[in-house]
Amino acid sequence: MPVSGMPQQEATVNYNWRESLAEALRRNRRDADHRYFQLATLAEDGWPANRTVVFRGFSEDGQRLQVATDARSEKHTQLATNPQVEVCWYFVRSREQFRIRGRAALHDAGAVEAPARERLWNAMSDAARAQFFWRDPGAALGEGADIPVTQSPPASFLLLEVEPLQIDHLQLASQPQQRHRSWIERGAWQSFPMNP
Amino acid sequence: MPVSGMPQQEATVNYNWRESLAEALRRNRRDADHRYFQLATLAEDGWPANRTVVFRGFSEDGQRLQVATDARSEKHTQLATNPQVEVCWYFVRSREQFRIRGRAALHDAGAVEAPARERLWNAMSDAARAQFFWRDPGAALGEGADIPVTQSPPASFLLLEVEPLQIDHLQLASQPQQRHRSWIERGAWQSFPMNP
Repeated sequence: MPVSGMPQQEATVNYNWRESLAEALRRNRRDADHRYFQLATLAEDGWPANRTVVFRGFSEDGQRLQVATDARSEKHTQLATNPQVEVCWYFVRSREQFRIRGRAALHDAGAVEAPARERLWNAMSDAARAQFFWRDPGAALGEGADIPVTQSPPASFLLLEVEPLQIDHLQLASQPQQRHRSWIERGAWQSFPMNP
Repeated sequence: MPVSGMPQQEATVNYNWRESLAEALRRNRRDADHRYFQLATLAEDGWPANRTVVFRGFSEDGQRLQVATDARSEKHTQLATNPQVEVCWYFVRSREQFRIRGRAALHDAGAVEAPARERLWNAMSDAARAQFFWRDPGAALGEGADIPVTQSPPASFLLLEVEPLQIDHLQLASQPQQRHRSWIERGAWQSFPMNP
């Protein structure tokens, strides 16, 4: 991953973005919205698109961020065309931000990841599941048809996984503020501290 | 503004995004972070980029969103190349989201908007101003040089204005949930209700 302005210095080793993110999740767990982040994608006409999604957990290997999505959404169409994303995750209580550039993958019932998709469905609340049976999201009000409600996930229910490639972590509450950039290189994470 | 899936029906007239946003700002004013939103842009390598910024108010005509930015930031470089943005503004307390596709403009001391830039500087807190005198943001820690502190804004202080072109407003707290899309057409705002 090429990083503009990357210094010709040894990367620091005393920083781990994955641990920092887990710690942020712990420190902000009392906030109802601490699992919401903003997912930026590219629209088909080349504009950036941006919306709030709910973080549903990490993949089993702990490396990818999981989100539930609907195959009928614009987000799905965009990601099927272009998997490049940037997550912006701001934690209010601890005043820190993770910007995660990554690659998105979409998994349906036929995917190798189908068991993880099934687990995600089972872990979701009834209210969260109900939305997947509603009429086509984004169509004019009332257009389209509801999907018959079933116990198992409808075909349009997808597991979206974001594989991080570069992370920019800003900690506003530190004195002085701290900022770290991390990126993956030959399978290993590197990082260095930056000016905030 | 072409809207995919736009229905062949008359646009509803009983919805005004500008009033809805002002109402959201009122209803969420007790939350310290209610003025934070996420700004998605296009990076120079074609990836989407996404970060949290602070809403500083509306332009005098009430039509544009104002943000303070630093000419030394990546965001500035990206916007100077490509003004296409999407704002994602989620209000936690009232559980509603505004997605605002718009065009960004950057104003420095030589711009027609210089008085608005000056007003923004004067309205900012000392802590917010101080950051504009720090070393180059995003450079390796310690690289670059601090900017001599002055009363007037440094040259790198810019007023960023986003001119909305299309708005998608989702209200999760309504029963049932409500969603409206608005767009500007020959100088007038149109809108229609959508499935959430």
